[in-house]
Amino acid sequence: MADHPATPLLDTVRTPDDLRTLKPSQLRQLSDELREEVISAVGETGGHLGSGLGVVELTTAIHYVFNTPHDRLVWDVGHQCYPHKILTGRRDRIRTLRQGGGLSGFTKRSESEYDPFGAAHSSTSISASLGFAIANKLSGRPEKAIAVIGDGAMSAGMAYEAMNNAEQAGNRLIVILNDNDMSIAPPVGGLSAYLARVVSSSEYLGLRNFAKRVTRKLSPRMHKAAGKAEEYTRGMVTGGTLFEELGFYYVGPVDGHNLEHLIPVLENVRDAEQGPILVHVVTKKGKGYAPAENAADKYHGVKKFDVITGAQAKGPPGPPSYTNVFAKALIAEAERDERICAITAAMPGGTGLDKFEKGFPDRTFDVGIAEQHAVTFAAGLAAQGMRPFCAIYSTFLQRAYDQVVHDVAIQNLPVRFAIDRAGLVGADGATHAGSFDVTYLATLPNFVVMAAADEAELVHMVHTAAEHDTGPIAVRYPRGEGTGVALPETPERLQIGKGRIVREGKKVAILSLGTRLAEALKAADQLEARGLSTTVADLRFAKPLDEELIRKLLTTHEVAVTVEEAAIGGLGAHVLTMASDAGLIDAGLKLRTMRLPDRFQDQDKPEKQYEEAGLNAQHMVETVLKALRWNASGKVEGARA
Amino acid sequence: MADHPATPLLDTVRTPDDLRTLKPSQLRQLSDELREEVISAVGETGGHLGSGLGVVELTTAIHYVFNTPHDRLVWDVGHQCYPHKILTGRRDRIRTLRQGGGLSGFTKRSESEYDPFGAAHSSTSISASLGFAIANKLSGRPEKAIAVIGDGAMSAGMAYEAMNNAEQAGNRLIVILNDNDMSIAPPVGGLSAYLARVVSSSEYLGLRNFAKRVTRKLSPRMHKAAGKAEEYTRGMVTGGTLFEELGFYYVGPVDGHNLEHLIPVLENVRDAEQGPILVHVVTKKGKGYAPAENAADKYHGVKKFDVITGAQAKGPPGPPSYTNVFAKALIAEAERDERICAITAAMPGGTGLDKFEKGFPDRTFDVGIAEQHAVTFAAGLAAQGMRPFCAIYSTFLQRAYDQVVHDVAIQNLPVRFAIDRAGLVGADGATHAGSFDVTYLATLPNFVVMAAADEAELVHMVHTAAEHDTGPIAVRYPRGEGTGVALPETPERLQIGKGRIVREGKKVAILSLGTRLAEALKAADQLEARGLSTTVADLRFAKPLDEELIRKLLTTHEVAVTVEEAAIGGLGAHVLTMASDAGLIDAGLKLRTMRLPDRFQDQDKPEKQYEEAGLNAQHMVETVLKALRWNASGKVEGARA
Repeated sequence: MADHPATPLLDTVRTPDDLRTLKPSQLRQLSDELREEVISAVGETGGHLGSGLGVVELTTAIHYVFNTPHDRLVWDVGHQCYPHKILTGRRDRIRTLRQGGGLSGFTKRSESEYDPFGAAHSSTSISASLGFAIANKLSGRPEKAIAVIGDGAMSAGMAYEAMNNAEQAGNRLIVILNDNDMSIAPPVGGLSAYLARVVSSSEYLGLRNFAKRVTRKLSPRMHKAAGKAEEYTRGMVTGGTLFEELGFYYVGPVDGHNLEHLIPVLENVRDAEQGPILVHVVTKKGKGYAPAENAADKYHGVKKFDVITGAQAKGPPGPPSYTNVFAKALIAEAERDERICAITAAMPGGTGLDKFEKGFPDRTFDVGIAEQHAVTFAAGLAAQGMRPFCAIYSTFLQRAYDQVVHDVAIQNLPVRFAIDRAGLVGADGATHAGSFDVTYLATLPNFVVMAAADEAELVHMVHTAAEHDTGPIAVRYPRGEGTGVALPETPERLQIGKGRIVREGKKVAILSLGTRLAEALKAADQLEARGLSTTVADLRFAKPLDEELIRKLLTTHEVAVTVEEAAIGGLGAHVLTMASDAGLIDAGLKLRTMRLPDRFQDQDKPEKQYEEAGLNAQHMVETVLKALRWNASGKVEGARA
Repeated sequence: MADHPATPLLDTVRTPDDLRTLKPSQLRQLSDELREEVISAVGETGGHLGSGLGVVELTTAIHYVFNTPHDRLVWDVGHQCYPHKILTGRRDRIRTLRQGGGLSGFTKRSESEYDPFGAAHSSTSISASLGFAIANKLSGRPEKAIAVIGDGAMSAGMAYEAMNNAEQAGNRLIVILNDNDMSIAPPVGGLSAYLARVVSSSEYLGLRNFAKRVTRKLSPRMHKAAGKAEEYTRGMVTGGTLFEELGFYYVGPVDGHNLEHLIPVLENVRDAEQGPILVHVVTKKGKGYAPAENAADKYHGVKKFDVITGAQAKGPPGPPSYTNVFAKALIAEAERDERICAITAAMPGGTGLDKFEKGFPDRTFDVGIAEQHAVTFAAGLAAQGMRPFCAIYSTFLQRAYDQVVHDVAIQNLPVRFAIDRAGLVGADGATHAGSFDVTYLATLPNFVVMAAADEAELVHMVHTAAEHDTGPIAVRYPRGEGTGVALPETPERLQIGKGRIVREGKKVAILSLGTRLAEALKAADQLEARGLSTTVADLRFAKPLDEELIRKLLTTHEVAVTVEEAAIGGLGAHVLTMASDAGLIDAGLKLRTMRLPDRFQDQDKPEKQYEEAGLNAQHMVETVLKALRWNASGKVEGARA
């Protein structure tokens, strides 16, 4: 523990019960120690740093003032919850963050009673908290529900939907708006500009007046008892109109790093007779750690780093990431074609569109955390003759599914979907895995669904999508680095619905979709070593299927296996359905489908996750041998000589 | 045409070009005739009446002032578009509304160049219009994009997301807020209350002052030219803050039935140098037709009716609708169990929760058009020990898919989904069909997915869902009437993942999910008549599958067919995958899957839609015979004696 900071006071706090025995005057020291502990831990594990540092004091103050876990505390997104985890009985495991078998990088119900509602996607906290508050109201329990939500998350429609419904919760619901003017990327949109105006037009209120004003506003009876109305000479708290119009009592802005302000304000809010209340807290992302404060992204997500210098660990140099290859390919398309536009929902860095934006600022649209709008906006662009690319992670595209169906697929509009993070994602775990896109897109009429087998294929597919004007088209590709293949100088326009044979064989056929192709080729080597001549096809398209190729492979090989990094209902299901429709299964068909398992996989190293999912070469070999009823030693177990 | 109203002026207007040759003084008469024509047409066809009647003057004014179709007009939802269709070249087909081969009941791109963006689901218009406006901006075209959106639709998150992004469109984007304080049901939530306050606190502005003020506000240079600033003595236009904070110029409220106000205001807005502009227009749903104005739902959706009396046609008395059976069953559950809650997203009547609410107002939550919030709110209720039922149509649940995945399935929370309108829906067409829910839900780990074969099954399934506390569970059921079976006195708790044999046979097995069961039984009769002994199973569960039963049926019958009213990727895909996983297909398996076709089906009579989908008894017989390689005359066509 030589490298760990000295944290004498924090060492005495195992749970919020311990915290609540401290004097208010000790909370500054506790917060300082908590901050050091977070920096030290994330230095070891990597993870989200800036967000947690911004809420150290807020975390301390909430657990000090509220009776957690009975009062329900819901962190929006949850990537700012490391200080919360340290204070709620999980400090002994904090250095296992985001590792296999370790703590999740987000809040998680199964981890702790202090995590009443898990998160990882943005903007769910007000809805969930409203559920807690109303359940308490129905059962006559007085406990509170507290949502802590960032200003970036407020740009999502569901946060607004929840605010629009909050009034019925009365004083059981408290929403703390953590305004750091910085979610992942710099904020966009009208709401963000509005909040900036509120903060800049108001001075931070002094403690004495502020607490009194809060009291007066929220608890008329208490105010009467307090008397001396003339003391309150200042005008009403500025701003807040927007939230007040939606039914909230607005309190703020409050300096989120000043415990002497935070504690009495939260105490007043806790004891208020009126509600629901929105507390506008202003914080600084990365607060207290200079390298984070100074970084453009405030160390939103970091690798392991040196605590003294802030230098992040670098992996060995490797092939470019799929994200970068996509960005470059799209830039090349945009240079050739001024109709190409790119849309991101608050992920310019994650999707590579930050690079695209440098070349084409007028044709880049960061709509904030607003996937629904992103997709229908793209549909409008397409209907007016543009060639829009919606670059949205697989898991986040779920949030725009109705827009994909109703505005894009039914109208058959040529919106291009660049689906990054398709498949397993490692340390971010189940909430970020892109498991369902093949299933939920390929079931839609009119859709073309591609998956890139390597980064060269991705370049071809971006070009193919750009040129495809007759309907919607999607290309999925995984998180992480490519395979290292040479990138094409000139991209090729692929024929829609046509796969390719990568390796010719005779007895076994592996029908691969996407980047498991490399493992399929390994499996083919191992099968050949056993004397099983193996064909490997890269189907490229989950929809439309290359029926001609598939029929040929199924009818000329003894066993066939589909492989995809996607859940049930995707490629394998479509191939089986085609084989059934065509009567190919009537006479007997050794066809197997390999896919993601029917369970949500926790975070781990990618190789462990693939092992757990059973999607490596060895699993393919086993599946083939089992289908052939061979045992491991190469003997045939049953019939068919 | 004896029953048709006399419409001498309207008869001269085939397109908006004709309209724009009229004098402003003629528009009152034109609107009156247009209103009569709408009433007369909907009296014949049934459909959405109140919404269209509320926007007769607005429709006239927009086409008069703007240069449609070059200026892009997007009607939100689109059910108010009948007057628009009459004015845009479709009057000759207006009496085919919502009928097979006729006009769609919504806007539709393939119908007319005056429908640049189709709709049917709510709240998409601002995003789409923003797409048009930005595309015009990028290509240097001056044309406008105009979204007309109701106050109810404004409660949806995606409308807010779009408003939050609107500023970049400048004066190319105009949003007309059609505030009739009534979407389908009475409105709910903070925004609605806000709009009511704006309208009630302001008087309608007189034309002369109003037009001048609009000019002053939106076109500073024009204002200077106009001079005489002292004339503008009234204060700023009241209200609007919320929209202004999001970046709009707010104009209103304007009386939406007063053409003398509407026309000059829209002209000023059209010519404004500033933008984007939100025009707040106040209308009355059902305006000008007393039976509609006086009805509680303002004749939102009506059957054919008598124009004089307003009396709607009644069908012959029949079995209760699935919706009503669901409502009664849920009421019975709630009487036994105070943890039962019910949530609807602005569809209390459509889901039957209006009946539930009468008995349990505290446990009924109408969240407005806000499906995302509805689902996560339900997840919060479940996490706090309640037993929530989310009653959302299949097609609208798409809008909450990420919440279903992220907040419910991953956390394995026992939220109950009552999925009405699952399958084909008749006159509402492709946008309202519930085609994808089996696929998009059954691919999720932890989910239980049921489909009711008849209304008695629905009662059992509601009970089963109520008692299922270990994870999410959904029951889907179709639009329309039940089969007329007796309802159980006491509901039964079904064993999860267990189907039932409805009819025992030997050679053919039909594996049915949901209400195609009746057709499956008819098919069995027809097959028996050909000497083919037929088993019919009601699988009840798409997930988890009854693997034991399915294995038995597949291995003891010569041919098996799955039947579901759902798209590819659902039951059939799961049965095939199970059969493949288990190696059942290796030795030959005549297994076929019958499902919805891979295309979006237009509106038609339900029986026509089933015929088109190929999901009737005769199709099942044909599928079986073909699998057996029998031809229609009962002869075997090929191998297998």
